Amino acid sequence: MTEFQAKKDLPSRWFRDYFNPYEHHEHALKGILYTGRSAFQEIVVAETLNFGRCLILDNEVQCAERDEFIYHEALIHPALALHPCPKRVAIIGGGEGASLRETLRHKTVEKAVMVDIDREVVECAKRYLPTFHNGAFADRRSEVLYMDGRKYLEDSKEPFDAVIIDINCPMEGGPAYMLFTKEFYSMVKERLTDQGVLAVQADNTSPAAFNTFTTVANTLKQVFPGVFPYTAYVPFFALMWGFCLATKGQNPLELSPEEIDRRISQRVQGQLRYYDGITHHSILNLPKYLREAIKAQTKVNTDSHPIIEKYPGMGR
Amino acid sequence: MTEFQAKKDLPSRWFRDYFNPYEHHEHALKGILYTGRSAFQEIVVAETLNFGRCLILDNEVQCAERDEFIYHEALIHPALALHPCPKRVAIIGGGEGASLRETLRHKTVEKAVMVDIDREVVECAKRYLPTFHNGAFADRRSEVLYMDGRKYLEDSKEPFDAVIIDINCPMEGGPAYMLFTKEFYSMVKERLTDQGVLAVQADNTSPAAFNTFTTVANTLKQVFPGVFPYTAYVPFFALMWGFCLATKGQNPLELSPEEIDRRISQRVQGQLRYYDGITHHSILNLPKYLREAIKAQTKVNTDSHPIIEKYPGMGR
Amino acid sequence: MTEFQAKKDLPSRWFRDYFNPYEHHEHALKGILYTGRSAFQEIVVAETLNFGRCLILDNEVQCAERDEFIYHEALIHPALALHPCPKRVAIIGGGEGASLRETLRHKTVEKAVMVDIDREVVECAKRYLPTFHNGAFADRRSEVLYMDGRKYLEDSKEPFDAVIIDINCPMEGGPAYMLFTKEFYSMVKERLTDQGVLAVQADNTSPAAFNTFTTVANTLKQVFPGVFPYTAYVPFFALMWGFCLATKGQNPLELSPEEIDRRISQRVQGQLRYYDGITHHSILNLPKYLREAIKAQTKVNTDSHPIIEKYPGMGR
Amino acid sequence: MTEFQAKKDLPSRWFRDYFNPYEHHEHALKGILYTGRSAFQEIVVAETLNFGRCLILDNEVQCAERDEFIYHEALIHPALALHPCPKRVAIIGGGEGASLRETLRHKTVEKAVMVDIDREVVECAKRYLPTFHNGAFADRRSEVLYMDGRKYLEDSKEPFDAVIIDINCPMEGGPAYMLFTKEFYSMVKERLTDQGVLAVQADNTSPAAFNTFTTVANTLKQVFPGVFPYTAYVPFFALMWGFCLATKGQNPLELSPEEIDRRISQRVQGQLRYYDGITHHSILNLPKYLREAIKAQTKVNTDSHPIIEKYPGMGR
Repeated sequence: MTEFQAKKDLPSRWFRDYFNPYEHHEHALKGILYTGRSAFQEIVVAETLNFGRCLILDNEVQCAERDEFIYHEALIHPALALHPCPKRVAIIGGGEGASLRETLRHKTVEKAVMVDIDREVVECAKRYLPTFHNGAFADRRSEVLYMDGRKYLEDSKEPFDAVIIDINCPMEGGPAYMLFTKEFYSMVKERLTDQGVLAVQADNTSPAAFNTFTTVANTLKQVFPGVFPYTAYVPFFALMWGFCLATKGQNPLELSPEEIDRRISQRVQGQLRYYDGITHHSILNLPKYLREAIKAQTKVNTDSHPIIEKYPGMGR
Repeated sequence: MTEFQAKKDLPSRWFRDYFNPYEHHEHALKGILYTGRSAFQEIVVAETLNFGRCLILDNEVQCAERDEFIYHEALIHPALALHPCPKRVAIIGGGEGASLRETLRHKTVEKAVMVDIDREVVECAKRYLPTFHNGAFADRRSEVLYMDGRKYLEDSKEPFDAVIIDINCPMEGGPAYMLFTKEFYSMVKERLTDQGVLAVQADNTSPAAFNTFTTVANTLKQVFPGVFPYTAYVPFFALMWGFCLATKGQNPLELSPEEIDRRISQRVQGQLRYYDGITHHSILNLPKYLREAIKAQTKVNTDSHPIIEKYPGMGR
Repeated sequence: MTEFQAKKDLPSRWFRDYFNPYEHHEHALKGILYTGRSAFQEIVVAETLNFGRCLILDNEVQCAERDEFIYHEALIHPALALHPCPKRVAIIGGGEGASLRETLRHKTVEKAVMVDIDREVVECAKRYLPTFHNGAFADRRSEVLYMDGRKYLEDSKEPFDAVIIDINCPMEGGPAYMLFTKEFYSMVKERLTDQGVLAVQADNTSPAAFNTFTTVANTLKQVFPGVFPYTAYVPFFALMWGFCLATKGQNPLELSPEEIDRRISQRVQGQLRYYDGITHHSILNLPKYLREAIKAQTKVNTDSHPIIEKYPGMGR
Repeated sequence: MTEFQAKKDLPSRWFRDYFNPYEHHEHALKGILYTGRSAFQEIVVAETLNFGRCLILDNEVQCAERDEFIYHEALIHPALALHPCPKRVAIIGGGEGASLRETLRHKTVEKAVMVDIDREVVECAKRYLPTFHNGAFADRRSEVLYMDGRKYLEDSKEPFDAVIIDINCPMEGGPAYMLFTKEFYSMVKERLTDQGVLAVQADNTSPAAFNTFTTVANTLKQVFPGVFPYTAYVPFFALMWGFCLATKGQNPLELSPEEIDRRISQRVQGQLRYYDGITHHSILNLPKYLREAIKAQTKVNTDSHPIIEKYPGMGR
């Protein structure tokens, strides 16, 4: 037998991220900085040994310090790079402020409205997650509202060049499942300018758990002429995560890598780490089985039959 | 397949208590209230869902709100009940204050000196573990010192009717392993009054992990005429925990259950929950395999060859 | 940071023993020798690194090679030692054969009938667990029947000097919950000779999980003049496990340790490892909180309201 | 509190796949079909509830029934699609037979030599993993040898159109670490025909664990004019897994998706599920941070300083 670690040297605090009842991913924790229950969800801020600080809502890992750049660059920049000159952006959800941060890096942006239903998430982020928002809440172009994002868009008068849906998965009992429906997407389309772009986080894409992803893509297709699902590997999730771009016709695959790099270089402050022209084409070209699963999906998510999940991606 | 729990309803934060590399006990956590590293050890205060708040030092679980009464009644009351009138008591270790609390319940006690090497543990307890000390630190009979307990006893002038050793297991790199030796026990004996009693926490008693327990018992036998090992099941540990009484000749098994109950009833404030005359005789009578293991143990723990552990009870 | 174990040296296969949703005990496995589903339950034979081979029924750990002597000596010998000369013994359950093995060590025993509802458990034991039965099934005094133990006793004509109930906990959906009721115990009493003794495994005794234990004791009290609950720590379970003796009046606490040792020495083949006169008195004297919980228990388990559990000891 | 699952309904057997000491991925097991230790490594065949049967060598998950198509299509088809007419293929490693199976789907292939050092792995696969080889071992074009793959290639006379390195990660104490060096790759290059292609599995690509991947890419660059690292998400690993193509000049990115689809359609029997022209371009375009990490890597793996790992991807 090899010499074993002593008890005192072993990691003893763990966060268990359930993929489903038969599989999970565990992170050793340095500590837990906050646990609380808002009107909408349980909020936890923990510090992992591998990924730094992280935000967890209703046991769903949202993002972690070390690799949130992947998720947030993947969510924000394809949409904004596709638009010729995005000035007004709405972010639905996005409580920890990182989507807002990435949006504000685009110098074209004049107004970024972030609408999160849960003020406590934003306050947690302000207190415990400074690298996530990195001052974005204080930017003079930001407006932060605490209300139902669907209600906000219904009532909003001025259109947006981009709408970003950065909300929880459509979990049973969670605050998000009514923001994945055909009716919601139809209303969002009306709030977009002519060249406006919608980007949504679209859940797990694993072979056994891509039901929500394919349903979201199929639901968007009922509403938008251009729908472009894509994925990015997020190490903290240990999953390929899904996203969708939806447009009134523009095709992001027609932008050359060089054109994307040019737009990023002209418009975006600082250096991106995940996204550029090559990444764009890589992630918007899905593996064959995912493309086929999307083609085969016939379900449409509606207000009367919304998809609801017990585990990410396993919606019914 | 049965209907499974949703992810949001499953416990996601866990404390893993390693018995050894091949076995552990896990507690779901509500949160972690404190993590820090003192000059002596890592200190964690966590809140478990089953056992309430608990103190953890160098990954070794010390005690938890819901069942610490078992450990602390088992450590303190057999010793104090055996003495005809315990007035002066020294507690070595015992940082969270519960041994002090139980000691002060004895109305005979005029002076209780608690000597813990780690001030930060005591400060943590004052802040986060109020039910553990329950005001004991503020009792006028208490004196709390922050220093090496061995040094304290070496230098102390006035003798004690009882000395309680409530310290960590003799872990590699931990602060406690020099307080389990023949030389230490010999010195303690000199500090005891004629009818003085020593009680020590004496580690795990599981069949595969009773090496420290049996060695402590055998080491005490080199010094004290009367040595009485005993055990109590501590649910938070999921282990039978070991203790030893050592005397200058008195035999705790000669006290009848009725006499113990009489002494407890006369001397102790409030109702005990774990200890009484019947419990006394139950726990001081060990199962056969433990008695035989103690008889068979020949090792003596010395300053030059102290027992040192990687896992509780698995000392070498 | 300390040097960490390499992946290849870490234990990777585990058995998780759920105490309840918030707490479990994990055993590293060398392998799993058998998994199957009989008409009554899921049967697993695994090999743990710490405890050797073990039997698991419906996820409930039954016993393991290294420490099953504790459970089986505790279940069998107090009952047989109490009887002046046990000749006929019935074992209800006990599929792996270890209760039969311990029973047959008593030279007074002329007939031992073991009745297990699940032939597949016995066949598994014969194939995979040779040290558990150790040839007991082939002893000429043994009779092994595969049927409902309750039905067997109802129909049996000749009385027994001891009846041993060695069955699963009264789990929801499991085969055992109708063998914990007042009606069942009343019928058992009629099958006992005048000095006959009943011994039952009586579930978890942990403070938060002793509901079944105290209910079994209280139910037996409705039927038997003498009821004596007791407990033994089983390291493989990491729990104090409960048992009850029930008699037509004999009091096991009136047998002196010396008398018990004399009986064991005269009657039992080979050396016991757990049980003797001192152990007898230790385990039959419960800690105060358990005695008080039994006194406070008013529930009686009946055929129309049987106790049914989701986790051991947490019956309702 | 919600109603919790009963113990009997919870998954109790688990395989823990350690990413590093602070993170792991756990799979519930139906059972373990085989555990053994060959002259080279520990071999385990387990059956997971989510991914079906799987092969595990020295605790390193190799592949699982449900998603091995991803890993094996990603390893084999880019290399074979790139070659104008692959006739002779050598597979180093690949014990479970799935790389051989995918290779033989190419009708151009006349000879496929599989060289695995560990006969016991192949025998395990034949017995327990029929869907992995799917008859490939019995194909008249197959030759299976049990010897050191490096030795085999050194001694081989006839060149190969493709060499596939499908071996373990370069683990400490494992059989594979001398097959990742510059000297080994130089020798392989000599065994390749003019348009010959090398494909190697190239370990974890996670941001904190891409050291082996980038080192393999950089080492190949010392030897081959064309080096093309790529990645595929393997759900069973919960990781993006790395691969490298190495060529004498051909550039796989110059093949259009249509040309790849044409070649696959002409040459490959049956339908692929993961790989086609779009997948090819997606996976060969890495995310920006990985491209930059490869560019920044200066280490070269040599026989005298081979990379050796404790955890996948964390080589030194």
